Amino acid sequence: MREASRGARHASQRLGLVPTMGALHEGHVSLVRAAKAACDVVAASIFVNPTQFGPNEDFAKYPRSFERDRELLEREGVELLFAPTVEEMYPAPADRNVGPPPATWVTVEELSGKLDGRSRPGHFRGVTTVVAKLFHIVEPDAAFFGQKDAAQVAVIRRMVGDLNFPVEIVACPIVREADGLAMSSRNAYLDGVQRKQALVLHRSLMSVRKMVEAGERSAARLAAVGREELAGEKLVRLDYFEIVNAETLDPVEDVSGGALVAVAAFVGTTRLIDNILIGKTNNQEDRHG
Amino acid sequence: MREASRGARHASQRLGLVPTMGALHEGHVSLVRAAKAACDVVAASIFVNPTQFGPNEDFAKYPRSFERDRELLEREGVELLFAPTVEEMYPAPADRNVGPPPATWVTVEELSGKLDGRSRPGHFRGVTTVVAKLFHIVEPDAAFFGQKDAAQVAVIRRMVGDLNFPVEIVACPIVREADGLAMSSRNAYLDGVQRKQALVLHRSLMSVRKMVEAGERSAARLAAVGREELAGEKLVRLDYFEIVNAETLDPVEDVSGGALVAVAAFVGTTRLIDNILIGKTNNQEDRHG
Repeated sequence: MREASRGARHASQRLGLVPTMGALHEGHVSLVRAAKAACDVVAASIFVNPTQFGPNEDFAKYPRSFERDRELLEREGVELLFAPTVEEMYPAPADRNVGPPPATWVTVEELSGKLDGRSRPGHFRGVTTVVAKLFHIVEPDAAFFGQKDAAQVAVIRRMVGDLNFPVEIVACPIVREADGLAMSSRNAYLDGVQRKQALVLHRSLMSVRKMVEAGERSAARLAAVGREELAGEKLVRLDYFEIVNAETLDPVEDVSGGALVAVAAFVGTTRLIDNILIGKTNNQEDRHG
Repeated sequence: MREASRGARHASQRLGLVPTMGALHEGHVSLVRAAKAACDVVAASIFVNPTQFGPNEDFAKYPRSFERDRELLEREGVELLFAPTVEEMYPAPADRNVGPPPATWVTVEELSGKLDGRSRPGHFRGVTTVVAKLFHIVEPDAAFFGQKDAAQVAVIRRMVGDLNFPVEIVACPIVREADGLAMSSRNAYLDGVQRKQALVLHRSLMSVRKMVEAGERSAARLAAVGREELAGEKLVRLDYFEIVNAETLDPVEDVSGGALVAVAAFVGTTRLIDNILIGKTNNQEDRHG
């Protein structure tokens, strides 16, 4: 992988990386297309990273469809595919020349305990550590992530800034099914009934957006409406519904300066997330003036 | 800095980095010369990194001699000098486009509490974090460190291996004064009496080496002799005298497989360190056979 990417670099080609855990859907395709449009050479990685899953999470059953994914990436014109094994990414002592099992972590301490990091302790340090590894192996000029994982985008941007990674982070808009459900590899876990219930995540965000468009600026009142909408779907268990600064993930009181509205909920045993970004707005009079 | 180093890279030149905290001495010069011999272009950095000093340590009074250092590096043929300010390396909120103060740390958890890391909590995470930043800014092919900081070398090698940094780590032998004292910027703190007392560190290591050459293999007996030697110098306060695996920093019982013999002690308020490496040896009969 490194040889191929260095080849591109020496030819002064711009290299884009699309890191994925496989089980590719239209959301991933949009990342690949954004990378193809912005870069000369596109690499994709497929790696279901064990260090970002909690002990009771779905690492073992996470959907894997390597051949289908490989064909899809080839069809989309991806030039390089990096699909290491767990043992290659986290080698056991015998294979190493620097000592026993990996013990190095990259941690964005200030953000790692917020939103999904609060619900999934250790998740973000697994993400930042594996993304740092991928960046060092692939050495991309730009990397493309889905805005669906908004907190992940914030954490990775922060890591890149704090550690001076020479990589541009590009966040691509959420891709949705026709009925509004955000594309996710985990949607494959849903049965027909759950699939319908899952729509409440998007619906709650649309309710908030409508209120913002009508002039509401109070994060507390907006979040209350979102949570109420979720509560109406009896079989959906809310994890969080929060309105925060999209960079710091800290709660905001007023959404006039822009905000991230993020929701996470369990539908059956499947944990789904969704979000919308509210842009910076002038005061109500100006917007309607 | 990045532009200059990318220029070298595009010209397919091998770039070496010598990271320093300034107050340069012959030990640093040996690193520069090793880099000059192995690389086409050599960059040095001078940065007294606050995040690797404890609250009661010598960050404020650490010797600084920028003009002298700059001239020395120029004389030695260093092509690139990177000397950022603290604010440039750890920007305050207003200067940043990714949010408030740096909150990202690179930590080699398994090694960070050993040897100097045990005496100086937080020290190694400060080192690994700033070295990761320097590697991302300078993007060297190889980086040169002094074996005097043996635990630091082990921690950095481990970080580079675990996180797949595309950087070769070269450790250069300790450079000593004529009487055996290991070169260190902190030697400048010593008065005449302390300077003489400080020789006990090297003397203790030489006693251990002599015993090993005479066939002793027990780390416990070797360390006892080293500690006894230190105890003989009444005004020197031992921090640690340990015999460990040079990669894992774990104690060894027997030095036949090679070992790092490392000592740290306070001479007055000045903390000094020194070490020797014992090579892999065959059993006693073979060596003398």
